[in-house]
Amino acid sequence: MNFTSDKEELLNAVQVVQRAVSLKNPLPILSGIKFEAEEGNVVISATDLELGISYSFPAEVIEQGKAVLPAKVITELVRRFPDVTIFFKSDPLNGSVTVKYGQSEANINGYPVEEFPELPLPVGDTKFSIPGEILKEVISQVIFATARDENRPLYTGVLFEISNGEVNIVATDTHRLAWRKILLDNIGELNINLIIPGKTLNELIKVAGLSDQPLEITVAENQVIFKTENVYLVSRLIGGNFPNYRQVIPNDYVTRTRLKARDLAEASERAALLAREGAPVIKINIGDNILVVSVNTEAGRVREEISVFQEGEDLRFAFNARYLSDALKAIGTEEVILEFTGPLSPVIIKPVGEMEYLSLLLPVRLREES
Amino acid sequence: MNFTSDKEELLNAVQVVQRAVSLKNPLPILSGIKFEAEEGNVVISATDLELGISYSFPAEVIEQGKAVLPAKVITELVRRFPDVTIFFKSDPLNGSVTVKYGQSEANINGYPVEEFPELPLPVGDTKFSIPGEILKEVISQVIFATARDENRPLYTGVLFEISNGEVNIVATDTHRLAWRKILLDNIGELNINLIIPGKTLNELIKVAGLSDQPLEITVAENQVIFKTENVYLVSRLIGGNFPNYRQVIPNDYVTRTRLKARDLAEASERAALLAREGAPVIKINIGDNILVVSVNTEAGRVREEISVFQEGEDLRFAFNARYLSDALKAIGTEEVILEFTGPLSPVIIKPVGEMEYLSLLLPVRLREES
Repeated sequence: MNFTSDKEELLNAVQVVQRAVSLKNPLPILSGIKFEAEEGNVVISATDLELGISYSFPAEVIEQGKAVLPAKVITELVRRFPDVTIFFKSDPLNGSVTVKYGQSEANINGYPVEEFPELPLPVGDTKFSIPGEILKEVISQVIFATARDENRPLYTGVLFEISNGEVNIVATDTHRLAWRKILLDNIGELNINLIIPGKTLNELIKVAGLSDQPLEITVAENQVIFKTENVYLVSRLIGGNFPNYRQVIPNDYVTRTRLKARDLAEASERAALLAREGAPVIKINIGDNILVVSVNTEAGRVREEISVFQEGEDLRFAFNARYLSDALKAIGTEEVILEFTGPLSPVIIKPVGEMEYLSLLLPVRLREES
Repeated sequence: MNFTSDKEELLNAVQVVQRAVSLKNPLPILSGIKFEAEEGNVVISATDLELGISYSFPAEVIEQGKAVLPAKVITELVRRFPDVTIFFKSDPLNGSVTVKYGQSEANINGYPVEEFPELPLPVGDTKFSIPGEILKEVISQVIFATARDENRPLYTGVLFEISNGEVNIVATDTHRLAWRKILLDNIGELNINLIIPGKTLNELIKVAGLSDQPLEITVAENQVIFKTENVYLVSRLIGGNFPNYRQVIPNDYVTRTRLKARDLAEASERAALLAREGAPVIKINIGDNILVVSVNTEAGRVREEISVFQEGEDLRFAFNARYLSDALKAIGTEEVILEFTGPLSPVIIKPVGEMEYLSLLLPVRLREES
C-alpha cells in the first residue's frame, strides 16, 4: 500500500469510521482501522461486529494494498498532522505503515490484515433509497423514545414498517412512544418490518455530509446496509416482534390545547429543578386557556403559567418533566397540539401542520391529591 | 430581602461565585449561595472554607435583607430564566425566597442565614495592587508547573516572593519549575513571601471581567484577599518554606538553540502518541542546526526534524513529552530559547525577548542507549 492524501480528507475519514471502533472488545483487531488503497481512492473501515463503517475518499494511489492500524494512534496522529501532503507506505512483510509529513515520519506497527472482519456486501433484492435530510429529520423525531436498557433489546431499536408505499417509523420504551409516517415513491411492493438499533441510527445521523445525499438502503439477512457516495454503514438488525403501536394511540380526546413547544419545554425544565431527583414529576393543570405547570416538594414550589388555546374540559395531569421536554424538543415545529383523553391515558403531542407525526406519553399516577 | 434584577446580571453573578461552592463538604450550608441585598446593590457569596468568592452587582433594592439558597437549584434556575426582569423576595420567618419571572414564580426553601460563614474583611496593612491582565498572564505562565498531589501541599501552591519593588512568581512540582519576575511600583518596602494555592489562582483567572481592572491584594494572617470593583475572592495561604529555587537554575550552558515553540510542542505531542502510556518519554537530538524528536517503542517509531539556530555542542536528551509541551505552550511567545548544560541537568526554556521568564525541566535518565 502506497498513497498520498491531504490532512483534511484523512481527518474527515478517520472521524467518520472511528464511531464503529470497538473500545471494549477483547479482540485487539477490532481496535484497529483498516486502510485499503484501491485504484484512485482509499477505503478505511472499522467495526465492533454490531456496527461497521467504511469511508472512501479520493487519493493518489501509487501501489494498491491493505493495512490495519491502531485506531487511537492513527486518529490522534491525523488530528495533529500539520497541513501538508501526507504519504502512507506499508511494509507487507510486517504490516507496519510509514507515514511521512513534511520533514518528519512515523512508523506505526499494525495488526494482521487477514484478521480484520470483512464488512458484508450489499447483496439482496430488498433495496430502497431515502433522502439523507429526511432520514435525519425522522430519526431525530423518534430516537428519544428508545429505551437505553440493553436487557430489553427490542425497545432499544426503531421500527421501520414498510408497506403500501409508506414507511411508519416507531420507537417506544413503554413509557412513551414516537411515530412518524413518510411516503416513498421507490419502495413499490416492498413489505417488510425492520428493527434497527438506536445506536446505529444515532451514529448514522452524525456522519458528516450525509444530509445532502440520498441514502441507499439494502436489507440482508439480520443486517441492514446504508450507503452514500462515500459512506458505507452496516448494522445488525434486532429480532423479534415490535409491539402493536396502533392500538395504544387514542383516537379521541376530551381536551385539546395548542401552545408554543418551547414555552412548555422550558417551564418543565425549570419546574424539574425543584422536583424530586430521579423521576422529576411535575403537575399540569389546564383551564380557562391557561396551562399551569407546578411542583411542590420539600425543596420548594414552582408555578408557571402558559397561555394556550383550549378546547374541551379542564384537566389535571402529572408527567415526568424530562420525558415531556424530550418530546416537545423532538417535534421541530414552533407550535404543538396536546390531546388528552383522561387522567390515566397517554397524552398525544403533535406538530401544528401537515406532518404525519405524533408522540405519546403516559402520565404519572399521583399518590396524594393536592 | 426584596430586589429586582435582570437575568444577565444574575447569571454572571452566580457563575462567578459557584466556583467556590462546596460540592463534597458534609455541611449543607456550604452548598448554598448567600444573597445580601444592600442599598442599590446585591452581593452574592459562596465558600468551601478554603476559597470564598463574593460578587456584587447593581440592583433595584426595595428592602434590604439576606437569604441562603441551594447553589445547584438557583444556578440552574437562573440559567433557564426567560430574558425578563426577575423579582426576588425573601420570607424572613422561614428563610424561603419567592422568585417571580413573567407570569411564573418559584418559591425556594433556603438555609439558615446565620449558619453561613462570614468571609473575612480586607484588614491589615499588607496591601498592594496588580493590573488584572498582568496577573492573568503571570498565572498562566507558571500554573502548569504546580503539583496536583495534595500530599505535598507546598508544591500545589505558587510562590509570590515580594521584596525590593519586585515580585518573583514561582511554581514547581520538583520535576519542572516555572519562574516569572515582574516589577510593581506600588509595593514600596513590602517584604513578604506568599504561597497561594494553585486552585485559587486557577479560579481567579477564570473570573469574568477580571483582566480589565486592577486587582487589589490584601494579605491577612493565613489568608489573601483579591478585590476588584465587583469581585471579592478570599483564599487560605499555604504554610511552609518554599524551596530555594535560585540554586536550581543553571547559570551557564553548553548548547543553546532558538526555535518556534509551536513546532516543538506539536512534534512532542505527535511523538508521545507512540511513546509508552503513563510517562510518555521522547528523545531529543541536537546537531547541525537540526533538532530531532524521536520515539521508538513496540507500538512504532516517530522521527521529527525541526530547523533550529544552534550554538555550542551537539547533544542528546530525553524528556517527558507532556511536560515539554506544557512548558512550550505556557510561554506565550512565538520563538523560544532552549539552554542545555548536560544530559542530566535541567533544560531551560525562555522566551525570545525582554520578558523575565523561564521554566526548567529535568530530563529523563535513559536506561538503554539506542
